[in-house]
Formats: sequence, C-alpha cells, structure tokens
Amino acid sequence: MKAAVWHGRKDVRIEEVPEPPFPAPSQVKLEVAYCGICGTDLHEYIAGPIYIPVDKPHPLTGARAPVILGHEMSGTVVEVGKGVKRLHEGDRVALCPIIGCLECKWCASKRMGICPSVAFLGVSWHWGGFARYVNVYDYMCYHLPTEVTYEVGALVEPFASTVRAVKRVKIKRGETVAVVGSGPVGIMAVQAARILGAKEVIALEPAQNRQRMAMECGATAVIDPLKDPVKEIKNLTGDEGVDVVVECAGLKGTGLLAGHLVKRTGRIIVMGVFEKPAVFDFTDLVYGEKTVIGSMGGFGEFDEAIRMMAAGQFNGKPLITGKIGLDEIVCKGFDALISCKEKHAKILVEPY
Amino acid sequence: MKAAVWHGRKDVRIEEVPEPPFPAPSQVKLEVAYCGICGTDLHEYIAGPIYIPVDKPHPLTGARAPVILGHEMSGTVVEVGKGVKRLHEGDRVALCPIIGCLECKWCASKRMGICPSVAFLGVSWHWGGFARYVNVYDYMCYHLPTEVTYEVGALVEPFASTVRAVKRVKIKRGETVAVVGSGPVGIMAVQAARILGAKEVIALEPAQNRQRMAMECGATAVIDPLKDPVKEIKNLTGDEGVDVVVECAGLKGTGLLAGHLVKRTGRIIVMGVFEKPAVFDFTDLVYGEKTVIGSMGGFGEFDEAIRMMAAGQFNGKPLITGKIGLDEIVCKGFDALISCKEKHAKILVEPY
Repeated sequence: MKAAVWHGRKDVRIEEVPEPPFPAPSQVKLEVAYCGICGTDLHEYIAGPIYIPVDKPHPLTGARAPVILGHEMSGTVVEVGKGVKRLHEGDRVALCPIIGCLECKWCASKRMGICPSVAFLGVSWHWGGFARYVNVYDYMCYHLPTEVTYEVGALVEPFASTVRAVKRVKIKRGETVAVVGSGPVGIMAVQAARILGAKEVIALEPAQNRQRMAMECGATAVIDPLKDPVKEIKNLTGDEGVDVVVECAGLKGTGLLAGHLVKRTGRIIVMGVFEKPAVFDFTDLVYGEKTVIGSMGGFGEFDEAIRMMAAGQFNGKPLITGKIGLDEIVCKGFDALISCKEKHAKILVEPY
Repeated sequence: MKAAVWHGRKDVRIEEVPEPPFPAPSQVKLEVAYCGICGTDLHEYIAGPIYIPVDKPHPLTGARAPVILGHEMSGTVVEVGKGVKRLHEGDRVALCPIIGCLECKWCASKRMGICPSVAFLGVSWHWGGFARYVNVYDYMCYHLPTEVTYEVGALVEPFASTVRAVKRVKIKRGETVAVVGSGPVGIMAVQAARILGAKEVIALEPAQNRQRMAMECGATAVIDPLKDPVKEIKNLTGDEGVDVVVECAGLKGTGLLAGHLVKRTGRIIVMGVFEKPAVFDFTDLVYGEKTVIGSMGGFGEFDEAIRMMAAGQFNGKPLITGKIGLDEIVCKGFDALISCKEKHAKILVEPY
C-alpha cells in the first residue's frame, strides 16, 4: 500500500510499504476513510523529530523512524484480532491515537493521555492514518453512529480535546469565554464552549478568514488580538474580563494575554503547545486569584464528542477546507497549510 | 506620637504626628503592641511608591503620601467608636490590614482581598502600625486568646496568608509539598502545609541560615535550588515530583522552577509577588495537566490561623529574629533586612 512516511525534517515521502498483517490479539485492522492533517504532523514535517523516535525505538511500542504519519482518522474495521469483543468487521469508527501502558496509575485512573510511556498512532506506532490500512488496539476505536459522516468522524480527535479542556475548566452555564486563536482547535473550542453552556464566546484571531469561520461556528464576537484585546474584551463584556479563557495558540505572548483577559478569580485552560517557555504575569495571577490549567488530548471524551456530533450540535462543514489524495499531501497539504494558513483550517486526506 | 512615615523612595522618617482622634463609627483605636516589617514595607522603602497613593488620594480611603507604614500588627483596643459591638476596651487583637468597599461582589462573597477598591493599613490608610496608635475598622480586628502572645500575634497576618494558600490548593493528607523560598512567608507556608496534613514538606532555599530555620519549623528536608533541584526532588520523593508546590519567592526563574517540581496533575500555588512577568513552561503544564493558582492575602483565615497558634501548632520563635524600637526601624530594620537578608526572618517593631 502507499503511505506518507516521515524520514526526516522536510522529508516526507509517499512510498510503497507492506500492508499491516492480520491484527495481533486485542488489535483490529482498519481501512482508513479520512485522516486530517494536524498541527503535530506539520511540526514534525517542519521542525521534527519532536515526538517521533529516531535514535532508539519507542520504549512501549518499539516503533521508530521512518514512521507513517497521521492520527486524526476515521475508518472501517476490516479484520478483528483475537480476544476483541466490542468491534466487528464493517464497524465505522473514529480513533483515539493514544497508546498507554495500561499498567501505570494514570492509565488506571482513565488519564491515559499523561501515561509516562505514552505512544501515539502516526508518531510512535508502527502504522499511521496516512495509509490505506492501520492496525490499532481495540480500545483506541470509538463507534461512529450513521449520523456522523466519515469526514466529520476524522474531526472527533481534535474536537474531543476541546470538549475535555472545556470540561476541565468547568464552564458554568451563562459564563463568558474567550478563545485565543482560531485554528481548527480554537474553532472547535468555540463550539465546545457554546455546547457546554457558555453565554458568550469571543474568538481572538487576527486573520479575517479564520475570524469568519469562528463566527460561522458559533462565536458571538471576534477580536483582533493585535488591537488592544484587553480593552476590547472589557468593552464587549461590560466587565473587567471574561470568566474563562481557552488558550489554543501557543505563541510567544498568548499565555500572558490569556491571563490578562480573565477577570478576578477567572480560569485559563491551556491547550496550545508552546515552542519554549513563555512569559506569564504571576503577580496578576496572585492579585486576581486566577487559575491556569493544562489540558492534554481528548482521552475520556470521545464518546461525548461523537454524541454531540450525532445530535447535530457540532458544525464541521466550515472547518473542512480541503480534501486531497495521498500523493498531494506535501504540496496541497503541508505546504498549503504553511503558506496559506489563513485560508485553511482542516485538510482531510483520503489515503489512496 | 512618633511614627515611621514614608515620604518617598529611601525616605522613611521617624517624626512626630498627631495621635488619631476618638474613633469614627465602626472604628476602634488600638495601641500597637508589635508590628512586623513585611516585604511590602521593604519594597515601598527601596522601590516605592508601589501601592502607596502619591499623586491622588486613594479612591476608597482618601489616604495619600506621606503615610505611616506598618500592617502586620497586634495590639490592644483602647477606644471604641459608635456602633461597634464585638470589641471592647482592653481586647487583645491581631489585625487584617485589608480595607474593602463592603459593597462589591468580592466583599460580599468574603473575598475582600480582591476588592477592586481595596486599601491597606500602613499603605493606603490614614494610619499604620509603625506608630503607637492606629484607628481601624472593627472588622479588621481578630481576637487573640491569652495563649497567643503579642509577638506571635504580629505574625497572624502573614501566617493567615499561607493558611489560605494551602487551603486554596487543597493539600490532601499524606501529600508531598515543596515550598520555594524560605523567607518568613515560605517558612510559615512550611508550617501551614504540615499542620494541614502534608506528609513531606521540602523547602527550597539557598541560604544556610534560612535552611536551618525551615528545618526548625517543620520542613522534612531542604534543597539548594541552585543545585539541580528537579533531580533532587525526584531523589527525595522517589517519584517524578511533588504533589504541590507553594511558590513564595517571586524571583525571575522561580515560577518556571515551581512548574517543573510537581508531578503530572500536580498543583502550584503562587504567593510570591514578581516584579514583572516571568517565564513559565506552558507546554509542560499541558502535557502534565498541571494547575497553577494564585493566592492573595489571608482574608477569611485569620481566626483559623489564630486557632492554630493557640493550639501550639505554630512555631513562631525561630521566625522572630529581632525586636527593635521605632527609632531603629531604618538602620536595624529595613537596612538590616536588605544587607543581611539571610540572617533575618521577621523583625518586630515596638513602635514607641
């Protein structure tokens, strides 16, 4: 089969690889329907290896570069390994890319995302979603009801991350929320916040096209973060700030900004991945008795995310700005997302 | 009466000022027993004005420089204003220096410390603890039982701040705690953490004398933060980090360090006041699903702090490293604390 294989920085090749074998016990073989290009894929392409094991095999999975990329995927079960009870041939599923040791206290406490040995599909696993077939553990698969298309099913993973973040920060009905950054995750966070009860959700985003997408997806207002956003938030809320900020940008100054956007006793949930430590106003944190929380992945909220999608609460359409084939993944996928970032949100790959 | 009056940066004068008049309604007149020198006083002396209103009167109290400094105080009620029911002549009290508007939602929700109009005794009030008499609102006074000396009573304010911080971060019985910085607040945080159930409390402090004080006050270990403290914490706990960090230093790198000392899902409570925004590792916050909380002052925990003191759970002795008269406040107080920081913890002033 063809696959998009990461060999090194700026070196992703479409090449012929062996199809995965009949699945091992507790695993299934899936035929990939769609696999979205994620910021993590881009980072590995531009600046990797970040999480891809190169020098030695991943301690849990034994995988190492070259690896097949891709982890935001939907697909169909085509073969079922020994001992798998809850999945059958033909089942439509979305994937949680997290592979835990299943033995540590984090895996046992349903926080597999922070397992110290954690591995990921498409990063530190033997297969990835940018290929026709993958073998995965059964626990990574979540059933998609017929109301959820394969296209939207490929958005379950990032959307579940935002559902988890919004739940972790305990948004109460009627609260005001600001979301920093309107990339795909930011726009999904806008939706998660609205669905989970926020009265107002203000998106902070400089790019006009993304501002428009945020509004289409339920933001009640947009602000250009380059134009005195703290003052703007005060004007919009008629208060000293919002109750909650969801940080989805991970840029040099966005952690500082997030802190300044919330009112006294406000909460900031951070999803953005920052390239390096960034400044933060600790004194403001103290004087305002604010709280900052980190949220990692969507583990535990996949079924909830799918339920919201099936109920029609989630709007995936404006987010899917392209569908491409495997051969186009570099030029029309990675490079397009880098050079025309503002035009695109989520590009789905049909990996054939 | 004599008072230590702040006129400007590095300009604190011992001068004759009028005694406060008979107290206004809802106020009492106190004779000061002891008033401790706090970091805030030092900051105003070295680098002020920080909170002292200079250009215009404080919007709530009308106070402005020159102001009498001093807010960590104990004393005796000598005159009682109209309408005051809960205080009587001769009552021994500790003071909460926070003056709120009593009208906003924060004052109404028992979070007066973050009232937007907040004023402070000894900073933005007409009187301060570095003088024989002060007039204060009745709600600022907390009864001292006979078991608590006036000396220890002067430590109620900073100790209550640490009790509040430790309660806000919800230390559970048996958890491990690291306290960054062994100034007076850090050492009191060590005690608050032990009293409230921490199994191990590790103090991070480079100065040997302060390390010793931390051990005397209940720290189970001390670490020099300049010598690979993250590794040391791992060795000491036999784990990837502590459950909770209490940040009491407010230095350039201590916010970053605090984040790195806690294990996955760990909590960091920040009490330190940072001169300006400082770096923080947001990505580690995300991947470890950590939480950072700010804590401001001790409002709400004064009675609890006094109860702990009366029960003999609090050890004030090692903390009081000097008692001086009002005339000595600059040379043996401020300047001593600046030049021989390591030797001193809390210096009490008998303001006569």
